[in-house]
Amino acid sequence: MSQPDPKRVKTDDDAPYELIYWPVIPGRGEFVRLVFEEAGVPYSDVAQNIEKGMNAVKSLTSTDNIGDEHNPPALAPPALKHGDLLISQTPNILLYVAPRVGLAPKEGNGAYHLNEIVLTILDGLVNELHDTHHPIAISLYYEDQKEESKKKSEYFIKERLPKYFKYMQRVLDAKTSGEGPWLYGDSLTYADLVLFQVSDTYKLPIKSFFDSLKTYQAVDGTKFAFPKSTEALKKSGEYDGVFKLYDAVKERPNISKYLQSDRRKKYSEGIWRYYPELEEE
Amino acid sequence: MSQPDPKRVKTDDDAPYELIYWPVIPGRGEFVRLVFEEAGVPYSDVAQNIEKGMNAVKSLTSTDNIGDEHNPPALAPPALKHGDLLISQTPNILLYVAPRVGLAPKEGNGAYHLNEIVLTILDGLVNELHDTHHPIAISLYYEDQKEESKKKSEYFIKERLPKYFKYMQRVLDAKTSGEGPWLYGDSLTYADLVLFQVSDTYKLPIKSFFDSLKTYQAVDGTKFAFPKSTEALKKSGEYDGVFKLYDAVKERPNISKYLQSDRRKKYSEGIWRYYPELEEE
Repeated sequence: MSQPDPKRVKTDDDAPYELIYWPVIPGRGEFVRLVFEEAGVPYSDVAQNIEKGMNAVKSLTSTDNIGDEHNPPALAPPALKHGDLLISQTPNILLYVAPRVGLAPKEGNGAYHLNEIVLTILDGLVNELHDTHHPIAISLYYEDQKEESKKKSEYFIKERLPKYFKYMQRVLDAKTSGEGPWLYGDSLTYADLVLFQVSDTYKLPIKSFFDSLKTYQAVDGTKFAFPKSTEALKKSGEYDGVFKLYDAVKERPNISKYLQSDRRKKYSEGIWRYYPELEEE
Repeated sequence: MSQPDPKRVKTDDDAPYELIYWPVIPGRGEFVRLVFEEAGVPYSDVAQNIEKGMNAVKSLTSTDNIGDEHNPPALAPPALKHGDLLISQTPNILLYVAPRVGLAPKEGNGAYHLNEIVLTILDGLVNELHDTHHPIAISLYYEDQKEESKKKSEYFIKERLPKYFKYMQRVLDAKTSGEGPWLYGDSLTYADLVLFQVSDTYKLPIKSFFDSLKTYQAVDGTKFAFPKSTEALKKSGEYDGVFKLYDAVKERPNISKYLQSDRRKKYSEGIWRYYPELEEE
């Protein structure tokens, strides 16, 4: 049989990087965008066009999709196309891209430490935060699981948020964090961009989904996902390294330019939402 | 400054593999064990001694732990020690071990496809299943979030379980699945072991935590985590590949020997539990 051997899928490193993700929201696609933006490496982003973006995601996630000659099917976006290769799962895409664009070591075991830090922040903190507004089912509206959301948020704020902030601070306190404000080694890696994006969601202005759908305009609110809780963490002084790293990433020239561009999506009805009632005492 | 460069942490490939995980439950440590068992590669498993296991996990997860000269701290077990290297996060440990023991390709982009499949099953299906009995907080007893668990389980059974089974079947239907019953390529990989362990939790007899704590004996019940729902999926005939792969892994000589050994932990108060009320019509 001349079965194609998927283990040998090769990619021309000069092939363009193509991100496939939902339009309108930053969501998990944002972690991938930040890597390309910081590295100054060109990429196409189908989410910049709402209709094309929706079609690309629908085709990617169709239950009829069984992949192609080179790739198994993806369950959900984001996905990244690079030549013949198509891969999905945010930490997996980052693992692939980061060493190729200079934001992770190309050899040695550091890649596994970075992957571990990123998995902890992404699959822990981000998923748990998402579930504060969807504890019962993602197919239900927030309004139909509001009571459970309140209950879950109470524990999230009290127990989980400090646990993860403490973890990030411990990684910064470790000897492996090296010189500078970075999580691992002496220079910025993609793990720092992940921490930035996660912290950002507690600090940046957002407004409700329906408003943003109506207007697609820049957001001018002054509310935050869990602003009171994050402010309390900041004031405690126990997580200074985390907040310092957040600022250091925000000031990177390429990141700073990106955040001001219209390529940066506004927070709306995605992972990160602002429901003030979830933060009541 | 003669800062140690963590990016260059090297490991002697002949160093022993040491698994650190909670004693008593199979949990996420089980995914790592299956890889060593199938490969026939020796590993030490501190969980085999309850006191030593508890102490190792407590020391690993202490909030005072800021790692060592070579490694950042871990948030949670499982962790794997290999020479000077210590890594955590289940999919990350598997990513590191599998190519070294012949259960994943050593070169090419296949590693990213396998990682994607494993992340989807592990971080999707396993985490969501865990949350069916802990939708509000992991610090609360199941009994204190029973109503919410019922509600979440209803949606899990109706929407999520078939979604993930359909995904696994689609990966098997893809051209990249090759000859044989395997998810990727023509021979067994660590992704197949992950699918086996996940499917197993819907099929193997378990009994309650408190009983198992009292007896530490072999479990002889005939109950299952979501037995009715899994049976319905099987009868539909739509996921034959998934059930066939489950059987194929179970019949592997090394796996078969392992499953009969006392190294194989019983299901109890871990990720996978049997609460019949969560499966009521």
